[in-house]
Amino acid sequence: MARRPTLEFWYEFASTYSYLAAMRIERLAEEAGVEIRWRPFLLGPIFAAQGWNSSPFNLYPAKGRAMWRDVEREAARLGLPALKRPDPFPQNSLSATRAATYGMDHDWLVPFSKAVFESAFAKGQSIAEPPAIVALLNDLGLDGTVILKAAALETNKGRLRVNGEEARSRGIFGAPTFLTDDGELFWGNDRLEQALAWAVGDRPIGIR
Amino acid sequence: MARRPTLEFWYEFASTYSYLAAMRIERLAEEAGVEIRWRPFLLGPIFAAQGWNSSPFNLYPAKGRAMWRDVEREAARLGLPALKRPDPFPQNSLSATRAATYGMDHDWLVPFSKAVFESAFAKGQSIAEPPAIVALLNDLGLDGTVILKAAALETNKGRLRVNGEEARSRGIFGAPTFLTDDGELFWGNDRLEQALAWAVGDRPIGIR
Repeated sequence: MARRPTLEFWYEFASTYSYLAAMRIERLAEEAGVEIRWRPFLLGPIFAAQGWNSSPFNLYPAKGRAMWRDVEREAARLGLPALKRPDPFPQNSLSATRAATYGMDHDWLVPFSKAVFESAFAKGQSIAEPPAIVALLNDLGLDGTVILKAAALETNKGRLRVNGEEARSRGIFGAPTFLTDDGELFWGNDRLEQALAWAVGDRPIGIR
Repeated sequence: MARRPTLEFWYEFASTYSYLAAMRIERLAEEAGVEIRWRPFLLGPIFAAQGWNSSPFNLYPAKGRAMWRDVEREAARLGLPALKRPDPFPQNSLSATRAATYGMDHDWLVPFSKAVFESAFAKGQSIAEPPAIVALLNDLGLDGTVILKAAALETNKGRLRVNGEEARSRGIFGAPTFLTDDGELFWGNDRLEQALAWAVGDRPIGIR
């Protein structure tokens, strides 16, 4: 049997549009027959390398106002709960991303990642402090304390850094980003459909 | 008879995604029963106020590479000619925007605007020099020299400045931007469908 095509889904827990993508990617991928590889990473170091010390949505207030309203509308259009704005925004996503990086070898990565996103953007809860992450893991029937301890080990922290380097070297500058097997990059929740189409070999005419 | 709902289409001639929007807005607006008000403006002063001395696609190279590839794919998907990259990018759009501002009172605004976009992005021609704009106007059966002279009068230059102030005061930070009668702002070619739906009163459930 032929291997199913895969698509990498690079996401950042503090990112509003990563949230929208995370909430709909499973259904769309199932319909398209594509396997998703969930790739948590930290956008902060990439933004810092671009000279940004915060989210561009904070640095450019008009852009930020439009983004919040847009995500509110898009969440409603996708049938998600009314959007909540985590305070402060962006949330420090280090603990959550460490745990998710550790989770890349475990079957709880996807439900955990969705739980983090829902906590931040559907419930407006803080995801910044380690106890919040422990609680989300515990709610999944896992041992959050043990997992966070493992996630804080040097080997996992190193993996998180290596993933960040991989993101940058593959051209990632924002989140969410979708990367196909053949290295085609699609940026933004709005390109999920096109990324899935590309993954199954459906390309616009004239594009190679 | 009820007035048709209107949607303002704010565009910048140097903007790749404004080009994509300009090439498809007439058909979609016709289908939706919405009247489009074409609003040419200059993005440069707005970018400068944000501290950018060039396009963000030049300032952030990874973002720029992804944008060119994305516009290439999107142009193909929309059935447009193979994308050409004007050199330099972004093109100085002052002459074209002055002419278009003058054209706001004339029935040639839309065909002229589309001709400018096609010249830049389907043919890869320079639109920066006044003679190029004169030629595009002449090709439409107009007197380009007379129009460019009128467009350079202080009254028209003032109107262009006022339009820029209006853009900023209404929350515009990029192009294309769609503004509805009730002031709802949609940024980007990807939001044209949602903007048209909003214009005819079709809102996501739970959004006011």
